[in-house]
Amino acid sequence: MSLFDKFEPTAKLLQSLLEASPRDPFSVKMDEMKGPTRAIVEGQEIVLAGTNNYLGLTYDEGAVEAAVEAVKESGTGTTGSRFANGTYSAHRQLEEDLAKFLGYKYCMVFSTGYQANLGAISALATAPHDVILIDADCHACIYDGCQLSGAETIRFRHNDPESLDKRLSRLGPEVKGKLVCLEGMYSMFGDVAPVKEFVEVAHKHGAYVLLDEAHSFGVFGENGQGVCEAEGVRDQVDFYTGTFSKSLASIGGFVASNHPQLEYLRFSSRPYMFTASPSPSNIAAASAALKRISSDNSMRENLWKNAKRIHEAFTQLGFETCAPVGPVIAVKLANKEQAFMAWNVLMEHGVYVNLAIPPGTPNATSILRLSVSAAHTDDDLDIVVSAYTALSQILSKQAQEA
Amino acid sequence: MSLFDKFEPTAKLLQSLLEASPRDPFSVKMDEMKGPTRAIVEGQEIVLAGTNNYLGLTYDEGAVEAAVEAVKESGTGTTGSRFANGTYSAHRQLEEDLAKFLGYKYCMVFSTGYQANLGAISALATAPHDVILIDADCHACIYDGCQLSGAETIRFRHNDPESLDKRLSRLGPEVKGKLVCLEGMYSMFGDVAPVKEFVEVAHKHGAYVLLDEAHSFGVFGENGQGVCEAEGVRDQVDFYTGTFSKSLASIGGFVASNHPQLEYLRFSSRPYMFTASPSPSNIAAASAALKRISSDNSMRENLWKNAKRIHEAFTQLGFETCAPVGPVIAVKLANKEQAFMAWNVLMEHGVYVNLAIPPGTPNATSILRLSVSAAHTDDDLDIVVSAYTALSQILSKQAQEA
Repeated sequence: MSLFDKFEPTAKLLQSLLEASPRDPFSVKMDEMKGPTRAIVEGQEIVLAGTNNYLGLTYDEGAVEAAVEAVKESGTGTTGSRFANGTYSAHRQLEEDLAKFLGYKYCMVFSTGYQANLGAISALATAPHDVILIDADCHACIYDGCQLSGAETIRFRHNDPESLDKRLSRLGPEVKGKLVCLEGMYSMFGDVAPVKEFVEVAHKHGAYVLLDEAHSFGVFGENGQGVCEAEGVRDQVDFYTGTFSKSLASIGGFVASNHPQLEYLRFSSRPYMFTASPSPSNIAAASAALKRISSDNSMRENLWKNAKRIHEAFTQLGFETCAPVGPVIAVKLANKEQAFMAWNVLMEHGVYVNLAIPPGTPNATSILRLSVSAAHTDDDLDIVVSAYTALSQILSKQAQEA
Repeated sequence: MSLFDKFEPTAKLLQSLLEASPRDPFSVKMDEMKGPTRAIVEGQEIVLAGTNNYLGLTYDEGAVEAAVEAVKESGTGTTGSRFANGTYSAHRQLEEDLAKFLGYKYCMVFSTGYQANLGAISALATAPHDVILIDADCHACIYDGCQLSGAETIRFRHNDPESLDKRLSRLGPEVKGKLVCLEGMYSMFGDVAPVKEFVEVAHKHGAYVLLDEAHSFGVFGENGQGVCEAEGVRDQVDFYTGTFSKSLASIGGFVASNHPQLEYLRFSSRPYMFTASPSPSNIAAASAALKRISSDNSMRENLWKNAKRIHEAFTQLGFETCAPVGPVIAVKLANKEQAFMAWNVLMEHGVYVNLAIPPGTPNATSILRLSVSAAHTDDDLDIVVSAYTALSQILSKQAQEA
């Protein structure tokens, strides 16, 4: 009779997979960072191609300088929540800057991206009168926001506005508030949502749309405002959530909106109120990265150029990619065992990507997920392509032998 | 039919309270930080006495230097979860150092203290077989952990081991795992838990104890290990949770344990797996603060000396304090309106403390919560005492007039 019994099945599965795996893909330790795309792991220099560091700004001169200055001037932590002593002028300034960059009137900054979705969803939709409609492939933190909210949660088919339409049609008049949650680009496969259609369906039924652009902020749209900008419906998104830990090169998250009621979340969102605010250095780094993104499109251009090269190379090598060209390029493997093997081959060839296996993936697929960075040099990409080439040869050989 | 209707009652209550309040106690902005105990707010220099910056290490030379070096060497963010690319050697080292400092074998670092409790509780106890028993006065993040877990949650009377005993006795044999959640020192009133008795009761019933020492780490016990050390039962606590955003002068959190199964949380705790890992500067600052705490007892001595002075002064002034001498010194006010007025008086006299009103407080009490820092100088404390003296005179005058 123990709390721990529940872990046994997963522990056993992992153990059996790890027995055949020279390295543990979930316990990689970066012994030394050498820049946004390089690290030393167990004595070997590795090309980092699984970091979601899309614009490569973690070593941006302005971001580093701003973070250093913030530590010296404002200390190593705020030791207080936004609600109490943890709001500095820099927190407010970043909220204003994000709102301005995205073209919304209001913005709230949270301590992590996870807490931004958790805090927005759980405060906006509550039991017993509200209903949340969630794209089946949404990120864990969106699911957790639904669970924390306690409101009835209904899944609709991934990227399927018709499925959403049907589910909204079935709701009775007793439902007070309807919140539709989706993402701009889904991080596992890198596939993009038909945001325009979703917004139309949702608003037709009087539902509000919460769109998570964690992986698409800074990357999609003419100005980097995300998929909703690319789809021309940025101003119709009710709640735009994002993170600092991808293109903004820091840690934290935010929710932006044109609804003045967003400000109510400051006294009702528990994951906002009952947590320490982001440290001065985290805020400063995100602010500096935002400034760079606002004024320099070259990173985004570089990212897409790199993405195109990788996607084409993988297609030529015969890999099955999960989505068209984009910053996340995931390839499907036959099963968990093959995915573990493949991940190890890439590491041997000096390339780190993310291994993702069921139940963490859609459709029980085992994938190797690569994320492209604007900071990837041609050298980096050569090494990546060369590693995948070696992998494809091994897979071909195994297929022939089987 | 709107999502926003639910906010109206609180918005109206706040609005009516704020109409009579020169300043908004929940929207204070620190325009400029001048050190761990001073800030400029609207042109006025304020003594910060509501920050939970117990050891005052946010400007510690070692912590600042370590944070600056970490930004330069390892970048402004990891842009990855602990589970993927977000584990650097510094994250592992801090886990080892915390385990060693506290005398446990295992430790996991989370991105916020909020997520540490959320992640530990929701992973350890799950529906339908487990039951969580929670002290009624536990922090919001512990309640949120219970909600996220989905397990049946039973409250017991605050700081009452007999109440816990009764509730545990009533559980049937179908209950698989039992998790008791409590805190070392409760942050609202500053009252301390009878941890030894709780541990005895819990273990008698085969229940595990999760103890949150967020506000007592570094502050209680001969070595600063917390209330469980002071009570002599540190090694009997099953899961010890803590935060970096109080005595450790950063942002983040951790769970430590002697149970090897803690490591299972690395592949089952969603708030651990699905969030970016703490930035290098946050880890470096916490590590440096821990080093200082491990080797220097003078801060803790100073803290208690300061706490004693403040507690004695408040008692002499006739304030009703919520607990004996300790790092949190809360005084009770008659009602919300008086508490708002009192908070404003203190700000006029250059002192920031936390205003807390129902429903955020136990027993529907309105309080002014002061937290003492080891960094408070005699000058700081003089200003605090002088402000509370002015407040007591106003309250006396009002009482006479009533």
